Amino acid sequence: MRVKIVGSAIPNMPWQDRPAGSQDVIWRYSNNPVIPRNLIPRANSIFNSAVVPFNGKFAGVFRCDDRARNMVIHSGKSDDGLNWTIQPDPIQLIPDNPRVAEISQFVYGYDPRVCWLDDRYYVTWCNGYHGPTIGVGYTHDFEKFYQLENAYLPFNRNGVLFPRKINGKFAMFSRPSDNGHTPFGTIFYSESPDMEHWGCHRWVMDPNTGWQSTKIGAGPIPIETSEGWLLIYHGVLTSCNGYVYSMGAALLDLDKPWQVIYRTHPYLLAPWEAYECVGDVPNVAFPCAALVDAPTGRTAVYYGAADTVTCLAFSYVDDIIEFTKKNSRV
Amino acid sequence: MRVKIVGSAIPNMPWQDRPAGSQDVIWRYSNNPVIPRNLIPRANSIFNSAVVPFNGKFAGVFRCDDRARNMVIHSGKSDDGLNWTIQPDPIQLIPDNPRVAEISQFVYGYDPRVCWLDDRYYVTWCNGYHGPTIGVGYTHDFEKFYQLENAYLPFNRNGVLFPRKINGKFAMFSRPSDNGHTPFGTIFYSESPDMEHWGCHRWVMDPNTGWQSTKIGAGPIPIETSEGWLLIYHGVLTSCNGYVYSMGAALLDLDKPWQVIYRTHPYLLAPWEAYECVGDVPNVAFPCAALVDAPTGRTAVYYGAADTVTCLAFSYVDDIIEFTKKNSRV
Amino acid sequence: MRVKIVGSAIPNMPWQDRPAGSQDVIWRYSNNPVIPRNLIPRANSIFNSAVVPFNGKFAGVFRCDDRARNMVIHSGKSDDGLNWTIQPDPIQLIPDNPRVAEISQFVYGYDPRVCWLDDRYYVTWCNGYHGPTIGVGYTHDFEKFYQLENAYLPFNRNGVLFPRKINGKFAMFSRPSDNGHTPFGTIFYSESPDMEHWGCHRWVMDPNTGWQSTKIGAGPIPIETSEGWLLIYHGVLTSCNGYVYSMGAALLDLDKPWQVIYRTHPYLLAPWEAYECVGDVPNVAFPCAALVDAPTGRTAVYYGAADTVTCLAFSYVDDIIEFTKKNSRV
Amino acid sequence: MRVKIVGSAIPNMPWQDRPAGSQDVIWRYSNNPVIPRNLIPRANSIFNSAVVPFNGKFAGVFRCDDRARNMVIHSGKSDDGLNWTIQPDPIQLIPDNPRVAEISQFVYGYDPRVCWLDDRYYVTWCNGYHGPTIGVGYTHDFEKFYQLENAYLPFNRNGVLFPRKINGKFAMFSRPSDNGHTPFGTIFYSESPDMEHWGCHRWVMDPNTGWQSTKIGAGPIPIETSEGWLLIYHGVLTSCNGYVYSMGAALLDLDKPWQVIYRTHPYLLAPWEAYECVGDVPNVAFPCAALVDAPTGRTAVYYGAADTVTCLAFSYVDDIIEFTKKNSRV
Amino acid sequence: MRVKIVGSAIPNMPWQDRPAGSQDVIWRYSNNPVIPRNLIPRANSIFNSAVVPFNGKFAGVFRCDDRARNMVIHSGKSDDGLNWTIQPDPIQLIPDNPRVAEISQFVYGYDPRVCWLDDRYYVTWCNGYHGPTIGVGYTHDFEKFYQLENAYLPFNRNGVLFPRKINGKFAMFSRPSDNGHTPFGTIFYSESPDMEHWGCHRWVMDPNTGWQSTKIGAGPIPIETSEGWLLIYHGVLTSCNGYVYSMGAALLDLDKPWQVIYRTHPYLLAPWEAYECVGDVPNVAFPCAALVDAPTGRTAVYYGAADTVTCLAFSYVDDIIEFTKKNSRV
Amino acid sequence: MRVKIVGSAIPNMPWQDRPAGSQDVIWRYSNNPVIPRNLIPRANSIFNSAVVPFNGKFAGVFRCDDRARNMVIHSGKSDDGLNWTIQPDPIQLIPDNPRVAEISQFVYGYDPRVCWLDDRYYVTWCNGYHGPTIGVGYTHDFEKFYQLENAYLPFNRNGVLFPRKINGKFAMFSRPSDNGHTPFGTIFYSESPDMEHWGCHRWVMDPNTGWQSTKIGAGPIPIETSEGWLLIYHGVLTSCNGYVYSMGAALLDLDKPWQVIYRTHPYLLAPWEAYECVGDVPNVAFPCAALVDAPTGRTAVYYGAADTVTCLAFSYVDDIIEFTKKNSRV
Repeated sequence: MRVKIVGSAIPNMPWQDRPAGSQDVIWRYSNNPVIPRNLIPRANSIFNSAVVPFNGKFAGVFRCDDRARNMVIHSGKSDDGLNWTIQPDPIQLIPDNPRVAEISQFVYGYDPRVCWLDDRYYVTWCNGYHGPTIGVGYTHDFEKFYQLENAYLPFNRNGVLFPRKINGKFAMFSRPSDNGHTPFGTIFYSESPDMEHWGCHRWVMDPNTGWQSTKIGAGPIPIETSEGWLLIYHGVLTSCNGYVYSMGAALLDLDKPWQVIYRTHPYLLAPWEAYECVGDVPNVAFPCAALVDAPTGRTAVYYGAADTVTCLAFSYVDDIIEFTKKNSRV
Repeated sequence: MRVKIVGSAIPNMPWQDRPAGSQDVIWRYSNNPVIPRNLIPRANSIFNSAVVPFNGKFAGVFRCDDRARNMVIHSGKSDDGLNWTIQPDPIQLIPDNPRVAEISQFVYGYDPRVCWLDDRYYVTWCNGYHGPTIGVGYTHDFEKFYQLENAYLPFNRNGVLFPRKINGKFAMFSRPSDNGHTPFGTIFYSESPDMEHWGCHRWVMDPNTGWQSTKIGAGPIPIETSEGWLLIYHGVLTSCNGYVYSMGAALLDLDKPWQVIYRTHPYLLAPWEAYECVGDVPNVAFPCAALVDAPTGRTAVYYGAADTVTCLAFSYVDDIIEFTKKNSRV
Repeated sequence: MRVKIVGSAIPNMPWQDRPAGSQDVIWRYSNNPVIPRNLIPRANSIFNSAVVPFNGKFAGVFRCDDRARNMVIHSGKSDDGLNWTIQPDPIQLIPDNPRVAEISQFVYGYDPRVCWLDDRYYVTWCNGYHGPTIGVGYTHDFEKFYQLENAYLPFNRNGVLFPRKINGKFAMFSRPSDNGHTPFGTIFYSESPDMEHWGCHRWVMDPNTGWQSTKIGAGPIPIETSEGWLLIYHGVLTSCNGYVYSMGAALLDLDKPWQVIYRTHPYLLAPWEAYECVGDVPNVAFPCAALVDAPTGRTAVYYGAADTVTCLAFSYVDDIIEFTKKNSRV
Repeated sequence: MRVKIVGSAIPNMPWQDRPAGSQDVIWRYSNNPVIPRNLIPRANSIFNSAVVPFNGKFAGVFRCDDRARNMVIHSGKSDDGLNWTIQPDPIQLIPDNPRVAEISQFVYGYDPRVCWLDDRYYVTWCNGYHGPTIGVGYTHDFEKFYQLENAYLPFNRNGVLFPRKINGKFAMFSRPSDNGHTPFGTIFYSESPDMEHWGCHRWVMDPNTGWQSTKIGAGPIPIETSEGWLLIYHGVLTSCNGYVYSMGAALLDLDKPWQVIYRTHPYLLAPWEAYECVGDVPNVAFPCAALVDAPTGRTAVYYGAADTVTCLAFSYVDDIIEFTKKNSRV
Repeated sequence: MRVKIVGSAIPNMPWQDRPAGSQDVIWRYSNNPVIPRNLIPRANSIFNSAVVPFNGKFAGVFRCDDRARNMVIHSGKSDDGLNWTIQPDPIQLIPDNPRVAEISQFVYGYDPRVCWLDDRYYVTWCNGYHGPTIGVGYTHDFEKFYQLENAYLPFNRNGVLFPRKINGKFAMFSRPSDNGHTPFGTIFYSESPDMEHWGCHRWVMDPNTGWQSTKIGAGPIPIETSEGWLLIYHGVLTSCNGYVYSMGAALLDLDKPWQVIYRTHPYLLAPWEAYECVGDVPNVAFPCAALVDAPTGRTAVYYGAADTVTCLAFSYVDDIIEFTKKNSRV
Repeated sequence: MRVKIVGSAIPNMPWQDRPAGSQDVIWRYSNNPVIPRNLIPRANSIFNSAVVPFNGKFAGVFRCDDRARNMVIHSGKSDDGLNWTIQPDPIQLIPDNPRVAEISQFVYGYDPRVCWLDDRYYVTWCNGYHGPTIGVGYTHDFEKFYQLENAYLPFNRNGVLFPRKINGKFAMFSRPSDNGHTPFGTIFYSESPDMEHWGCHRWVMDPNTGWQSTKIGAGPIPIETSEGWLLIYHGVLTSCNGYVYSMGAALLDLDKPWQVIYRTHPYLLAPWEAYECVGDVPNVAFPCAALVDAPTGRTAVYYGAADTVTCLAFSYVDDIIEFTKKNSRV
C-alpha cells in the first residue's frame, strides 16, 4: 500500500477478487445486477443509487422509478451490501424548518448521493423545483429524512458533497444543466458556510474528447487520499444513436479541490455487458457511490446500468490512482 | 364477474393463465414472439398488426415491412390465433367507387386495425397520401379488400373505429401528427354519417407525464363494457436515447366517448423483455388488437415488439378495469 | 376583356390605376398601409384580414392582435373599403346548435376569410381548439356571428371556402400544419355535404422552389372565371434570417378544383416596401381577400404586411391570368 | 398621488410630459435614441444600460459592444441624464479580496444593472465565467469598481438586486438560462447574508402567453411602493422570424417579493419605432434602469433598442401601477 | 505610400474621399446602393456581385435573383463602375470541352467572383450540382462564358481564385459547407496544376469570436502587396434573430498563403445603414470584389447589402493594412 | 458461372457454404464476430475494417477505437482471414514527401479501406484534418505506411478507390458529409491524374427510400465483372430511435462508373443478430472489404457490427449480381 486513504475500515463490504488473468483496473461483480429492476413491487427500475456503511452494515438511498415512470427515491438497508431491503414507499421528506416548507412540495427526485459528514448522513439528489436542481437533506437513521433548502437555482444535476469541510466551509460539486436531455455539462465546485447559502463557485473541469466529449458529472463522494481527492465521475459520448455513459477518475488538490491534478484519458468502465447495453436507456454505466475499505483500499462502486438496474464493480484505490496517473490528460 | 362486456364468446381464443405468483395485471405469452419477423419470405419484420375472430377461427391484417423497408399490409388467417398463415403478397386495395380511384395509388400502409361493424370488417391504417393519413377500407372475407375515402387530411395516424355507431354516427379515434417522428400526439374523436365525411371532432386526452409524456394513441378497437368503453392505448416517453413505447388503459363515457372517466397513471406493460428492447426500433410495445371472450373477460392483446415481431399478452377485462380505476389520474 | 368573371359589379370598390410607366402585374396602393396597427385602442396590429362587399358598402373580419399579443378577430365596416370602423371588442361567437357549444370556448382566432355563399357570409379562421384548426361560422349582418363545428382535426390553417358548391357539395381549401411555425405546407381540397362533416380530401399543390419553397397556402376566396378558378395564394421562402411571405396565383379546373392548370413560377408581389419589411414579423405580404369588379376585372387585394398592418394592391383579373399563363410552372 | 414611493426626489431627472391626446401608459422620449450607437469611438452599439442618480447628477454603467462585437461595460456620467460622457475604455474590475482574484479574469460582461444599497452602488451584470452567470461588484464613485464573487453558478442572466435588505438579507432576482439564445426563462428570487453566498431560492413567475410566452427577466431595480414592489420586466415572444422583446410590469409582496400580486397581461411597451425594429437585433425593447422622482412618481425608463442604441420612455409610477392592477393576470 | 501593391493603375475607378471628420478605415459611397434591386426587369435583387477593370472601363458578373427567387448570374458593363448596364438574360455557359458537358446543366449559380489570370477572366461561383459547389469558367469579353469542371465536390461556397499562380500552381480559397444555411465555415486553400484537378488542401483560418464567430469566407480576389496577400473576407455572427454578415481583413504569407500573419479582430464594416439592415435578408454586408488603383492604393469594395442591392465602400490599401496590423488577433 | 470476374484466385479465403435451406443471398459466418472488441489490449472496439490477400495469406487495416474512444487504425495479419494478429500500436504514418508533412499531424483516423493498385496497397480512411476528409496512403508490407495528400477538402467520408485506373486516371468514390452525425449522404466519383489532385467529380447515386433513405456510402473496393463494377454499399434509415445501417449492392458502367445500371431496392443484409443490434451503436452492419475468389465467385464480406466488432458474411458474386438485377430500382 502506497496511498494513504482517509476513512474507515469496512471489513464486511462486498468484494470479489480480480478475476484471474484480468488486466482490468476495475472488474464487474459476477452476479450483476446486484439489484434487479423489480426488487420492490410497482418499481419499473432501480438504479443510480447511493450506498454507505451504516451501523456495521449498509444503508442507502435508491432511485426507484415507478411504473408511471415517476422518479422517486426510497430508503433501503442491507447486511452485506448485496442483498437489499428497500422500503416499498418513497422517502417522505420532513422540512427542517418553516422556510423549507415553502419549497418542500415533492415533484420528483432522482440520482441520490449520500455523504457522512460531521454527525449525520447528508443526502443530495436531483430535485424538481421549477426545473431540476440540487435537493439537500439529511438523516440519522435512514428512517426519517429532513429537507434543507435547495443548494442552487435550477437547472442543476449531480450534486455531490465532500465528506469534510474544506477550509472551513461545506463543499459540493455539481453540474449545471438545462431542462432537458442536456447536451453539455461541466463540473463546478461551490462552498457554503451553513449548508443553506452557496457561493465561491469554481470551475473544475470540462468535457473534452471521446467517451467524455458531451458532458461529465461527479459520481460517488470524493475519496480523500494522500495523493489528493479521488473523484470517480461519469462522462457521456454522443453517438448517432444517442448517449453513451462511461466512468473515469480524477485526482484533485486536497485544499483547492477545483484544481485537477490528474484525469483519466481512457475510461475506467464503459457499457459492454448486456445489462448495461439493453434496458430503458441503452448504453449507460453511471456510478453514484463507492464503499472504500481504508486499510486495504478495496473499493466497491455502485453504478446504475441502462437506467434499469443497479450493479457493482470492484477495484483498489491504489490501482485506480495508478491508472489515473499513468493515463492522464488534464 | 362484475363487469358486463358487450361482445361475443371466443372460446378458442389464445390463452394462458396468469403465472403462479405473478401480481401483474397483464402477463406475456410464454412463447413470444408469436409471429417471428421472417414468417413470410422477404419480410423484414411483422408487427403492429390486427387480429379478429373470423368464422370461428381468426383472421388479421398484418404490417409486414419488406426488405426494402417498404411498409405494406398483408392478410392472414389462423385456426388458433397463434400459428398464422400470412399471404406472401400485400393486400391489393380495390376502389369502392370511381372517386376513390382518384386517390387509390398505394404509397405505403402500416399499423392496421380491424373492426367488425354492421356487416363487414372495416380496416383502418396509416395510409400514405401526400403524408400519412387514415386509410379506410373493408373486407368480408379477408381475401378482397375495398378502399373508401381517407378519413382525414394528412397528417394523421392510429385511426381506430368504434365497433358500433355512437348516437347514430360512425365514430373513430385518431392521433393528428406531423410528417416525421412526431414528438407530440393527442387522441381525438370524430364522427361520420357515411364513413366518408368526418366532423364533430372532439379532444379526448393529451399526453401527460412519465411513460405517456410525449404522445399517446389509441390501440385496439375499444371494448364496450358496463363501466364504459375500455380503451387500451400506447404512450411514448422520450429518453436521451429515443422513444419508449408502453401501453396503458382508459375508461370512457359510453355515450360521449371523448369524455375520459379513468386513465391509468402507471403503464400496464412496458418494454422489459429482450424481444421488446432489441430490434429495428428498441424499446417498443405497441398494442393494435385485442381478442375478448365476453363471458369470461379473457383478453389477448396483440402488440408489436421493437417494431420487429408480433407478441401476445393476456389479462382479464375485469382486472384491467379494476387496475385502471385504482390507479387513475385523468 | 377576354376573361369572363362570375361575380357582381362593385363600382365603388377601392381603386387606383396602374402607375405610369409601371410594368408590374400588381401595384400597391399609394397610401399603404390602408389600416394602421393602432386603428382601434389596445390593438397591437391589424392585418391578415378579410373584406367583402356588403349592402353596397363594405364589411370585413379583421385580425386585431391585442397588446397582450392575443390573437382575436373583430368585425368592421366601411363605406369605401379604405376608411374603416372596426368594432373595439372582439367578435363573440354564438354556438349555432347545442353540440357546437361543446367546443365553443374561445382560445384564439386569426387569419379570417369571409365568403358569400347561398344566403350568408361564411367566415373561416384559424381557430384554437387543442391546436390550430379551421373554425367555421357565419353572419348575416356582421353584427351577430354564429359558430359551426370546426371543419377538421388540428393542425390546420388557411381554410378558404369556395363561393359556390362544387358538384353539389361545399368545398374548402386548407393547409395542414403542425403546432408551431410550421416549416412545411401543402394546399388540400375537401368537400362537405352539410358544412359539418368533411371528406373526399384531395391534394392540390406542394411548395416547390424559390419564393414558394417552404410552404404555400390559399389566400382570398377563389375567383370564378371562364379560364378556371383563379386562386391567389401565399408562398414562403426560408432565408437564413427567417421566413419571407410573398404572393402568387394559380388557375384551377372549374369542376375539379384540385387540378392545377397554371401556376406562377415568379411571385406576383413580394415584401419590398418598408411597411412589409419592418414590423412584428419582417418580410411578410400575406393576402386574405380580394374585391373583384366583374364587369371590369378590377381587383383589390387586401394583404397583411409584416404581421402588423393591412395593405392594398390593385390589378386586373385579366392581367393576373395572363401573367399566370405566361409564367407558369405547375 | 395615491401611491407612496420609497425613494428620493430627483427634480432634475429627464422628463417629457405625456403627449397631448396620448392614452399610452408609457410614452417615448421624442429625441430617441438618447444615446447613439457610436457615442464613443470603436463602439458598435450602446444599449441595455443602467443609470442612477449620482451626486445630484447622473452616472451609469453602459453596455458598449465594440467593433469586434466583444461585450464590455463602461462607466459614464451626465448632468441631465440625456447628454452622456462615457469613458472610452471598459471598466477595469479590481478584485475585492484575494479569492475573487481566482475568478476575475474578464471574459465578457453585458446587460448591467446598478443599485444604490447601504453605502455604495452595487453593479450586477451578465459575467462570462465558463458560461454566463451573474457578476457582482460595487463602486463608490463610478471611477473605481471592485469585483465580488459571482452570485451563482452558470448559466444565468439578468441579475437584479433589491435596493434594501429583505428580512435581513440581500435579495436578488435572476433568470437561469442555458449557454445560447435561451428559449426559456423564469424569474427566481435568491437571498444572501453576505453578498457572497446565495440561497433560499424561490420561484417568482414563469413566462405565460403572448408577448411574454418564451421567457421573462427582471429589468430595472424594483421600485418600493405602498402597493408592493413594482417590477418592470422584459418578456419575449418567438415569431417565425425570431425573438420580440417587450416590457411589462408586476407588483410583488413587500415582505415576500417572490409572491406576485399583479402582473400585466398586455405589455407596457413593445417595439414599434424604427430604432426598435431595425438594428443589430430587430424588435427589441429591453429595460435596464428607471429613475423615479418619489414626490411626483415621474419615471424615466432607460431601455435598449434593437440591441443597438439606448432609449428613454416616461411614465408615472401611479399610472403603471393602476394599469398593472386593471390589466392583471397572475 | 509605404505598401507596394502588385497591380495596375485604374485612374477612372469609382472614388469618393473619406468624409471630413471620419475616423473610419472604410467609408460608404454616398449614393448607395450603387445598383438598385430592380435595375433590370424581372429582377428581385442584384447583389453579391463581382466587378473588374475591362478595356479601360469596367465589367462584371452579377447575382440577379429573379422574381421566382431563382439564383442566376448575369454579365454587365459600365463606363465608370457606378452606372451599369446588366444583360437582361442570364449568362449561358458554354462547356469548354465534352466532358464538361456531362455536368453543365444549369441548376443555380450565385455569389460570383471574377479574376484576371494569365490571359482571361476566370469566373468562380457557387454552382448547383447535386448541392452547392464551386463552379469555374472563363471569359475573354464578358459576352461568351466557357465552363470548366467544378473545382470540388459539394458542399462548398465562396471559391476565390488568386490572381497569379503560387509556386507554379493555380490557387483558390473556398469555404466547405453543408446543404443548408450552414452554421459553420472555415477558409481553406487548394492548389491545381491545370484548373481541373485540385489538391494540397490547406486549412487557413477558422471563425473565432464576435462578428466572425459563426463562419467566415473569402471575399474579393486577394490583393498582392509587399506586406503579403491582403484578403478582405466576410464573417457571420448568429444573433437570436439570425445571421449578421460583416467584413474584415487578413494579411497572408506571399508564398504560403494559408499562413495568416495578421487578421482584424474588429470588423471593417458591419450593417449599420438601412439598406444593409432591411431587405430580403436583414443585416448583411457581403464583399465580393475590390478595385484597387495600385499607384495610390485607392480601393473600392463592391458588397451586397441585405441580399438585395449592391453597394460600394472606399478605403486605401495602406489604411486597411495598417488597421489590420494594429487590430490583429490571428 | 456466368459472370466473369477480373481478379485473382484466393483458394484459402474464409468460407462457409450457404446453410441448408437458406434462401438468403448472403449468409453470416457461424462464428461471428470474427474479431472480438478486445482482441488487443486497450481496445474498446474493432470494426469497420479492411482486409486484402497478402503474400498468400491476409493482411488488413483495422479501426481499433481505444478506451478513450479515440479513433485510430492498426495494421494486422492473418493466415486464414479468421484468426488475426493486430499490432498493439496504431499505424504511424510517414509523410511521403515534405509537403505532406505540413498536414500529417494525426488527429483521428477511421473506417479504412485497402486497395491493391499497380504496385502497392493504397489505404484510404476518414482522416481528421480540420474536419473529416479522405486520407490517402500506401504500404508495401503492412509494416510501413506512407501518407499522401488528403484527397478532398473536408467534410468527407467513405473514400473508396477503384482497383485500376479508369480512362487513364485514378478513380475514387466518396460521400461528402458535414461535421457531425451527417443526416444526408450521396455517393460521388472523382478522378486524379496523380493521386494528389482530384477533379472531374461526378454524382453517382442518392439515398432514396426505406433502408437507404437517409444516406448511402461505398463499402468494399468495387469488384470488376463482365456485368459492370459490383459495388457493395451501406445505406442508412432513420428510425425514431436513431440510425440503422444495412448493406446493398449496385452494378455500375465499366467505363463510366458514375452511371448506375442496377441497384438493389431491398437490402442484402440488415442488423438482425444480437451482435449487430447491441453494442456501442445499436443496429449497424457496415461493410468495408470483400475477398473474392475470381474462379468461383466466392465472396467474403467483412463488416463492422454495432460499431463494436468485426463480422463476416458470405455469398457468390453471381448470386449478388443476379439478386441486384432482379430487385433493382435505380
